[in-house]
Amino acid sequence: MTSVSSDGEGITLTELQLATRNHGLPLEALRWPVTPIGLHYVLVHYDIPQVDPAAFRLEIGGHVRRPLSLTLGEIRARPAVEITTTMECAGNGRALLTPRPLSQPWLAEAVGTARWKGARLAAVLAEAEVLDGGVEVVFTGLDRGVEGDVEQQFERSLPLGETLSGDAIVAYEMNGQPLPPQHGFPLRLVVPGWYGMTNVKWLAGVTVVTTPFAGHQQAHAYRIRLDEDDAGVPLTRMLPRALLVPPGIPDFPTRVRTVPVGPCVLEGRAWSGWGPIVGVDVSTDGGETWGEAELGEDEGRWSWRPWTYPWAPSAPGDHVLACRARDASGNVQPDEPIWNVGGYANNAVQRVPVRVAD
Amino acid sequence: MTSVSSDGEGITLTELQLATRNHGLPLEALRWPVTPIGLHYVLVHYDIPQVDPAAFRLEIGGHVRRPLSLTLGEIRARPAVEITTTMECAGNGRALLTPRPLSQPWLAEAVGTARWKGARLAAVLAEAEVLDGGVEVVFTGLDRGVEGDVEQQFERSLPLGETLSGDAIVAYEMNGQPLPPQHGFPLRLVVPGWYGMTNVKWLAGVTVVTTPFAGHQQAHAYRIRLDEDDAGVPLTRMLPRALLVPPGIPDFPTRVRTVPVGPCVLEGRAWSGWGPIVGVDVSTDGGETWGEAELGEDEGRWSWRPWTYPWAPSAPGDHVLACRARDASGNVQPDEPIWNVGGYANNAVQRVPVRVAD
Repeated sequence: MTSVSSDGEGITLTELQLATRNHGLPLEALRWPVTPIGLHYVLVHYDIPQVDPAAFRLEIGGHVRRPLSLTLGEIRARPAVEITTTMECAGNGRALLTPRPLSQPWLAEAVGTARWKGARLAAVLAEAEVLDGGVEVVFTGLDRGVEGDVEQQFERSLPLGETLSGDAIVAYEMNGQPLPPQHGFPLRLVVPGWYGMTNVKWLAGVTVVTTPFAGHQQAHAYRIRLDEDDAGVPLTRMLPRALLVPPGIPDFPTRVRTVPVGPCVLEGRAWSGWGPIVGVDVSTDGGETWGEAELGEDEGRWSWRPWTYPWAPSAPGDHVLACRARDASGNVQPDEPIWNVGGYANNAVQRVPVRVAD
Repeated sequence: MTSVSSDGEGITLTELQLATRNHGLPLEALRWPVTPIGLHYVLVHYDIPQVDPAAFRLEIGGHVRRPLSLTLGEIRARPAVEITTTMECAGNGRALLTPRPLSQPWLAEAVGTARWKGARLAAVLAEAEVLDGGVEVVFTGLDRGVEGDVEQQFERSLPLGETLSGDAIVAYEMNGQPLPPQHGFPLRLVVPGWYGMTNVKWLAGVTVVTTPFAGHQQAHAYRIRLDEDDAGVPLTRMLPRALLVPPGIPDFPTRVRTVPVGPCVLEGRAWSGWGPIVGVDVSTDGGETWGEAELGEDEGRWSWRPWTYPWAPSAPGDHVLACRARDASGNVQPDEPIWNVGGYANNAVQRVPVRVAD
């Protein structure tokens, strides 16, 4: 398999197989502050494991003084925290790149927000007593497959400092229910602000290591590489992005939107893993001119921020709507994507063509 | 937009937009007898409406003596029935046709099984007292869009006899929970054995009519038409189909399967809207020879039937697995699909390539 599409090539059968299994957030579902189960984006690398919760153990080990083997009941018995966090796939926007890296072909919809409940990762690690010399923590999922010709379970690492200071939890509930199978039942890692691949599902192993983890998902995949010779840098936190609810009504199957002449309120949500959202700009003329949206209530540091923008098209005609988020760290969405080998982190501004009709 | 793909054309952006919104059943989820929420296939023609349940009313009217306007509470107060039923999109298999009708590009995964709870449709109609001369019942959803250049809400009809004698319900629960938004919250029609388009979501109107309904989804879409000049016949019940859980482990992103040498048990499920499943045949050599699977427990007339088939590949090599269902009405899955304009009801046998490795 080649790694990018050839000139003008349509979506391949390989990409379609992934697109029919995995799914994004239908953009009208941006209306919900917490995404209902089944609408939150899902990406599964291998197969969804079917896990017996009674036999399940979370093994915490490696460079620690007191390795732990915890049942679900033991994890649930620990002090619980609940965090509402927006999660986005690092590959969101991939299918809008030219040439198109061949993998899950996301457009702009690989996102969702959930209420996750679990035990603090830092507290669990403190109980295991990490020894001096630990540098990273490796998280191992139960999902198994082949990738880059290597048979593996899905594994990612975090710097030790991030695990001890951050808001990360080992989560057993999503939106007040046990995790659905596709979101990691019975247990997953949730690391607020980081791209989806960090949030290891079907989490079964937490291992402190003394040298940087060199597994496939850390050393080869999920890195920004500008060409095949570039070793690249690992993806970490989510870049800012705003998305709008496509207004009016859609055509089936083209999804072209029709909006009536007259006042309407454009609405959407915006998020960033690097800092709170400080502004959203909206354009109704394809990016020639921009106006500032009104930000809605702040629903917590890790949850997307709602915004609205009044619009009143006065005559029939075609428009291209666009929106652009800015965060407190000074990051702004670019007009055009930065191409990279894996097709990651394309946070170029969303463009939504609409037809205004009488 | 042309209605079919051109020679060798890859999946188009139009199809991809649908594929990232709607999703199928990841085939490993055939392991669950009742599909967990979020894994059941979803097809939404327009946008998912956000419905205020307090303001919601189901209007039953048309050619009846006593029109009814029912709140959700009033519907829930009626005698409840719960049915476990397998539901499949009429477009399942579309993307495997050549040329490919351009719509939601399903491969083989547009299916799921749920426990639906609600009030019997026949009882509600009896209460409204259908007048002599009624021939059909039209079901109107709250989802609105444009299709075939006509602005419309999604509407489908059933023959009156089918509504009075069948097991259809107006459902407010799925798997013991309120309907998720994407499955029709707060109310949907469920007609066991019929293709998905029959099961109108966000159901707000039930109207008895005295002439056959000629709306878009009845007169133009969801018909088997062999060419553009063919008026065609409407789709009704699901043809038989068996699907198997792809064994072994997948490659990401190609999903090529690797299975170890030695015994394994192939498993899957089979269903038909025309009659109980009486047998499933399995091939491990691409359809040259077939053996009979063992049927598992019958989980009710409308639920898919589990099956197993022992296999013991003795040497490394490539295989194509296939399975084929037969029902009590004498229907058998064909080896090759019957092409039709809308790309409906392609129940040709599933083929799963696997690599047996040491």
